[in-house]
Amino acid sequence: MKIQVAVVGATGIAGQQVLAGLDNHPTFEVAALAASERSAGKSFAEAITDPDSGIKRWYVAGAEPAPAVMALAVQEARTLKLDGIDLVFAAVESEAARELEPLYARRVPTISTARPHRMEPDVPLVIPGVNLDHLALVREQKRRRGWQGFIATLPNCTATGMAITLKALEAQFGIDAVMVTTMQGISGAGRDLPALDIVENIIPYIPREEERVRIETRKILGRIGEGAIIEPPIRVSATCTRAGVISGHTESVSVALKTPASPEEVMAAFEAFGADFTRLRLPTSPRHMITVHRDPMRPQPRLDRDAEDGMTTSVGRIRPDEVLPNGVKYLLVTHNAAMGAGKGAVLLAEYLAHAGYLRA
Amino acid sequence: MKIQVAVVGATGIAGQQVLAGLDNHPTFEVAALAASERSAGKSFAEAITDPDSGIKRWYVAGAEPAPAVMALAVQEARTLKLDGIDLVFAAVESEAARELEPLYARRVPTISTARPHRMEPDVPLVIPGVNLDHLALVREQKRRRGWQGFIATLPNCTATGMAITLKALEAQFGIDAVMVTTMQGISGAGRDLPALDIVENIIPYIPREEERVRIETRKILGRIGEGAIIEPPIRVSATCTRAGVISGHTESVSVALKTPASPEEVMAAFEAFGADFTRLRLPTSPRHMITVHRDPMRPQPRLDRDAEDGMTTSVGRIRPDEVLPNGVKYLLVTHNAAMGAGKGAVLLAEYLAHAGYLRA
Amino acid sequence: MKIQVAVVGATGIAGQQVLAGLDNHPTFEVAALAASERSAGKSFAEAITDPDSGIKRWYVAGAEPAPAVMALAVQEARTLKLDGIDLVFAAVESEAARELEPLYARRVPTISTARPHRMEPDVPLVIPGVNLDHLALVREQKRRRGWQGFIATLPNCTATGMAITLKALEAQFGIDAVMVTTMQGISGAGRDLPALDIVENIIPYIPREEERVRIETRKILGRIGEGAIIEPPIRVSATCTRAGVISGHTESVSVALKTPASPEEVMAAFEAFGADFTRLRLPTSPRHMITVHRDPMRPQPRLDRDAEDGMTTSVGRIRPDEVLPNGVKYLLVTHNAAMGAGKGAVLLAEYLAHAGYLRA
Amino acid sequence: MKIQVAVVGATGIAGQQVLAGLDNHPTFEVAALAASERSAGKSFAEAITDPDSGIKRWYVAGAEPAPAVMALAVQEARTLKLDGIDLVFAAVESEAARELEPLYARRVPTISTARPHRMEPDVPLVIPGVNLDHLALVREQKRRRGWQGFIATLPNCTATGMAITLKALEAQFGIDAVMVTTMQGISGAGRDLPALDIVENIIPYIPREEERVRIETRKILGRIGEGAIIEPPIRVSATCTRAGVISGHTESVSVALKTPASPEEVMAAFEAFGADFTRLRLPTSPRHMITVHRDPMRPQPRLDRDAEDGMTTSVGRIRPDEVLPNGVKYLLVTHNAAMGAGKGAVLLAEYLAHAGYLRA
Repeated sequence: MKIQVAVVGATGIAGQQVLAGLDNHPTFEVAALAASERSAGKSFAEAITDPDSGIKRWYVAGAEPAPAVMALAVQEARTLKLDGIDLVFAAVESEAARELEPLYARRVPTISTARPHRMEPDVPLVIPGVNLDHLALVREQKRRRGWQGFIATLPNCTATGMAITLKALEAQFGIDAVMVTTMQGISGAGRDLPALDIVENIIPYIPREEERVRIETRKILGRIGEGAIIEPPIRVSATCTRAGVISGHTESVSVALKTPASPEEVMAAFEAFGADFTRLRLPTSPRHMITVHRDPMRPQPRLDRDAEDGMTTSVGRIRPDEVLPNGVKYLLVTHNAAMGAGKGAVLLAEYLAHAGYLRA
Repeated sequence: MKIQVAVVGATGIAGQQVLAGLDNHPTFEVAALAASERSAGKSFAEAITDPDSGIKRWYVAGAEPAPAVMALAVQEARTLKLDGIDLVFAAVESEAARELEPLYARRVPTISTARPHRMEPDVPLVIPGVNLDHLALVREQKRRRGWQGFIATLPNCTATGMAITLKALEAQFGIDAVMVTTMQGISGAGRDLPALDIVENIIPYIPREEERVRIETRKILGRIGEGAIIEPPIRVSATCTRAGVISGHTESVSVALKTPASPEEVMAAFEAFGADFTRLRLPTSPRHMITVHRDPMRPQPRLDRDAEDGMTTSVGRIRPDEVLPNGVKYLLVTHNAAMGAGKGAVLLAEYLAHAGYLRA
Repeated sequence: MKIQVAVVGATGIAGQQVLAGLDNHPTFEVAALAASERSAGKSFAEAITDPDSGIKRWYVAGAEPAPAVMALAVQEARTLKLDGIDLVFAAVESEAARELEPLYARRVPTISTARPHRMEPDVPLVIPGVNLDHLALVREQKRRRGWQGFIATLPNCTATGMAITLKALEAQFGIDAVMVTTMQGISGAGRDLPALDIVENIIPYIPREEERVRIETRKILGRIGEGAIIEPPIRVSATCTRAGVISGHTESVSVALKTPASPEEVMAAFEAFGADFTRLRLPTSPRHMITVHRDPMRPQPRLDRDAEDGMTTSVGRIRPDEVLPNGVKYLLVTHNAAMGAGKGAVLLAEYLAHAGYLRA
Repeated sequence: MKIQVAVVGATGIAGQQVLAGLDNHPTFEVAALAASERSAGKSFAEAITDPDSGIKRWYVAGAEPAPAVMALAVQEARTLKLDGIDLVFAAVESEAARELEPLYARRVPTISTARPHRMEPDVPLVIPGVNLDHLALVREQKRRRGWQGFIATLPNCTATGMAITLKALEAQFGIDAVMVTTMQGISGAGRDLPALDIVENIIPYIPREEERVRIETRKILGRIGEGAIIEPPIRVSATCTRAGVISGHTESVSVALKTPASPEEVMAAFEAFGADFTRLRLPTSPRHMITVHRDPMRPQPRLDRDAEDGMTTSVGRIRPDEVLPNGVKYLLVTHNAAMGAGKGAVLLAEYLAHAGYLRA
């Protein structure tokens, strides 16, 4: 029997991305949906359709969920029934996540795409294929909190793409400092970004984003110690901007390595990275954690965001940085709405199942 | 009587920008136009109109030139008649510039927007309000080459906006190193960039651009020595990308200063910069060389590129950089098709007239 | 002494467009501002600035209002003090307009950009230069309602551009039917349109828009009879879509004329149209109601929306229609946020002042 | 053994679309590639890669062709060897097509995506699933011209989407007249459209496009008579514009039917259309020729162009037209670079193979 999962925040963009990732899944079955009071009691199909106009709020490219999911009754998030549920995907806004996720995690493993619990010392902040060893924190978390389940969090989508590449470098060369300027896609802002602001424009500021990139990157690159992550003393300087691209974050990264490395060595490190993980061939896994381009015109968000179903990080223009000591620089494209969102959560769930964290 | 000018490359984008800057000008009169063989002999109006379809190739926003200019006969660039011409604006492609500009400069002062002569030791590479003292090279140039005229060049549009802000910092705090990631407007690429490449996309590479930013920035920031520019040992690391913005280059800049400065001191330095020059109130001059924004959502290319008719550099988000020593970072927007192109050339011409370099 | 005006809805887009149109105005002085409860009591500068982030909500291109306006205390719309106010600009949402406008109009002439009162029989729906004779309804309105002031409304921005051209045709050739497909700019939707919906896309439906175009066009083209408008039996078929253009509505129009006319005759009718009105040289008036393009590549919204400060309607590609009887077709571009919004309201106010409707 | 095909114009966009459609094809094997002199002699991989910069000119989304195709030597189009070739796809510019296609067709069946031969009386202009009976012209063509092969042409991409829907209406209700305004994607213009022209803009004119829509639509809807097509007396009025959408043509269509039909009847006609053809389940065939949307916000090019791999025509907003007699109107989205281009050509080839037109 498939692992039974609940998706909370199912009517929102993040939740719909999780649903899309779970569509026709070999391991998981969507057994429950939850959302705010407004949707509670309706079928999912009703909950996302405006009754007067017939306008449908299915925000994810591609087909709608299977009829069985469309017909599920949406529960209210606060009173979601957890009996028979093996795993909760919580894809809700920060404020709701702060309150709801502990409710679920008391009883059931909970994967969160939201911010509030990411930086708590006993909560793992993980990217599949990058720092899955951090999941060991889960034991400490259950012990301390006396929970049956746990919370495992995924990082901010902007941190995700960069951290994948940084981990490859940290492992081989060590890292002293990182500078990044991002050009982020619109879908990362959800439906709150008015068209009037971004069409034919660049917005130079994304509230809180640079801070998140800074602190989450360090936690992801940390070593697991005695029930906590020991963060490395890596300095991170981030400038986060929004560009008129639907999906795909483009990031211009410069890294000061601890030991010098040529562009060729960096390329080799990128291409070799994550083979242990991709070898597991989990259903949502990319074949390569990092895809290296030699054509200097790549990566481009429109052309490369969907590579390996949005689950690989595309890197190009690897070259020495003229300013930083042992500096190397490159550009990357990461699909903020795939590996950095719902599909990343599904991939993490697949690993949790594989490694025995569910139904344990 | 007004100063008589010729515009070479008049049918191209750069030339049309010069023409727009000269429209109804109090000091200059467009006395001659030149372009390639294909246009030679036609009136300017004919030269920019497709005879079959009636489609007009006037690329600059705003009105077409005055009827007197529309009626001028376009000459062939190679055989442009220089009698009675006091100043030539050469706005042509690199290859043509290499050959044509010396032809003109032998007899007449020539302002060039093109690349080939920028880095020659006796050729000034100037931004009005930034390093006009470099024009002193002109004497050396005339002496060495035995020319009656001279070539004065303007930098690459991407270098222009950044150099304006760097000069303000260099003067007060000194600079050790500069890192920049640009998101450049489409108009900087002229009409060669296919829509198919850039719509809903970022292009991570602009051939030769990063090198130009690196070397031109250093020359602009140099001190004038014995008939040559003494370049400062500033390291520059540039990553230049193209974004789906019509005009306006957005640049994310981090600077390692020689002496520490708070964001407030940097702001003050920016706001005070260039007052000696703007006080001249030349017709095309901005009122402020740099405009500082305190709203963190600014500057934005669509909203700020046209500030002060595209002649000011808009700066915002001034804050410490976490990685560079004495680091400060900020974003800027510069209008690549105004100060960084034709109107910058017209402003330089105004200064040349003011300072006695023409009809001397 | 200048005419004292109040602007209601001053913090919204429509209200800010009115304020921009009133900036430094020779006839009008902004004496009062009003908005919702949330802004009441704050200065206008405070009301449009987020106190935490410093982010400013000034949505209109170009400079902010003069310091005197920025310093005005914003009143609550419901309790706006009308003493000393000669004219109210009401630029609020439909629901608010339904309630507020009669409050004001009881005492003071009120110009409305909103929908609710447009189709009332004794309320004029006017475009300056097109059907100003409809203002005669105002006398009937005051009589019937026993008001000291009155409501005069402006049409939907999409109807505006087309009605200007239709009036020119109706006057000379008569009209039987009109078919139009629009490609409307984003600014017409205000800040409610998510970027995610429209970037690199066309949205085929704008709720209620087609109906408004249909009924408002007929009222505008009507003749004024005994205290009411006699609508002509013109059939109108509209399809309204949204395109990824910031401002400027492009409309593909086909008209069945009553009497045949060649493209040249239509062009002549367009170019001659409205001379009586433009001759008044009101401060915000275009020089030509309609600008005719002969270049088949025009009009384009980005190139032509700002012609004559956004107050002229640009028309091109005038040619026979192969399907409609006596058919002629053309494309037009109208600036939805200028003539079709705040600046149109200011122009109407200028005419009201000119014609003695204010301070009467 | 698979059917051996040659692709001429392989380095261009249209040719690459054909190649993408042939990738890993169950019936066809790419046995030869041809292009202009410039590419002749190089492997396909070399021909599309700039040797200096490493920049690759593979324009089609998705993966490059299989290694075997990348390694094929590109022949010069004029001297393409036809021995062993069963079918030629000619995807070249008009001028080249005029000369080259008869060269091939003399010996081998040739499918053309180009314009020159479309309107010749004995050349079928076919859309798979719409008017495949027109292929009977091929016998006449071979007889008259004494050719072993033949030319079969596909229509202009804009005509394609509309003709599919019109055929469904014509068959059931008859058609008197059609009016259409298009908003066409950029990819339809290939790489010749400068970004500067279309970003944040609408271009109101596409040279020759309206005429093509008019005449090709009539030929497609014609009945096959004695060795020629008998065109129906349907009047067509087209206005073709370009919008800032990468791919997908959106078309606003109004049709005057011969016999009245309700929106529901039209919907039913659309949904039933083409079942005989889709039942063949050819490899590249859509499952439905037409996909009807009930959500009024659909179809949208970004969301719907890729439905059924770009091979279905998406229709929505079906409603009565207020002007035309027995008028019905709707919007459609067709993928100009799929059914309207290379993949449409592959689908036609599949039908030719199925129906015995190849290797006959």
